[in-house]
Amino acid sequence: MNKLCISLASGLLGLSVLTAANAAGPKPEDTAEYRQSVFTIIGWNFKPIGAMVKGEVPFDAAAVARHAQYIEMMSKALLEGFSKGSGPDAVKHTEAKPEIWTNWDQFNSKLNNFEQEATKLAEVAKGGDEGAIKAQFGKTAETCKACHKEFRTD
Amino acid sequence: MNKLCISLASGLLGLSVLTAANAAGPKPEDTAEYRQSVFTIIGWNFKPIGAMVKGEVPFDAAAVARHAQYIEMMSKALLEGFSKGSGPDAVKHTEAKPEIWTNWDQFNSKLNNFEQEATKLAEVAKGGDEGAIKAQFGKTAETCKACHKEFRTD
Repeated sequence: MNKLCISLASGLLGLSVLTAANAAGPKPEDTAEYRQSVFTIIGWNFKPIGAMVKGEVPFDAAAVARHAQYIEMMSKALLEGFSKGSGPDAVKHTEAKPEIWTNWDQFNSKLNNFEQEATKLAEVAKGGDEGAIKAQFGKTAETCKACHKEFRTD
Repeated sequence: MNKLCISLASGLLGLSVLTAANAAGPKPEDTAEYRQSVFTIIGWNFKPIGAMVKGEVPFDAAAVARHAQYIEMMSKALLEGFSKGSGPDAVKHTEAKPEIWTNWDQFNSKLNNFEQEATKLAEVAKGGDEGAIKAQFGKTAETCKACHKEFRTD
């Protein structure tokens, strides 16, 4: 191989490494920030429904439907925020316990429960039935708690 | 008014103040955290489309459609993250300039532009036409830049 070929080959190798790095996806810190953002938006939309359920503010069916739609969307956005290698070993500020990755099937099942109940909440919310919404809100909140209890540090 | 009445009246007044506080909505810090989370999720979904547009990773129409749907949803979630009183006067860590609230109509118009282009991006993405997606992605990114230039600190 002459010098030009070596240079070209190194160049191509460099390029492919760079492409692989890009294709490899986000850094652990970015993944953690992403999942924390998803949780923030879930909480932001959960809170006003909770206030209505408790009777602290007047019931507003249209507002509930909108908030529930965001909770559903966010429930489906969570999984990609828990990619392998984004746990407390790699990330400074995270409440995610290492058990998420060591007991992945159990965690994933709890995440699915949340997604299912959040999807039902969005469906029920479209109907506007206050009693049904209250009941389904309770079920959805239970799936949050069930997962936090085992997989989130206090 | 006898003592019992005064006590009852104060109690009710206290309750109504409490309810008003709850009804008044989130604290400025929470609002800022919310909007920053919305931007994080927009960025998270923008990046992989950008990588495809640049040819860094293979084009994946289904992935683009999913990401674009999230960008659209988040574009519609931004406005409530800029409520009055959640600017740098009230919040420690924010890149939001005070001009957002002093030039509200202009800011709101730029936010609307982003929402419109993001909605179009989600529509175009459903079609799966790579060229159309690239063009619409560029237009959407322009509306981001236009707003950041005037209303975000560097």
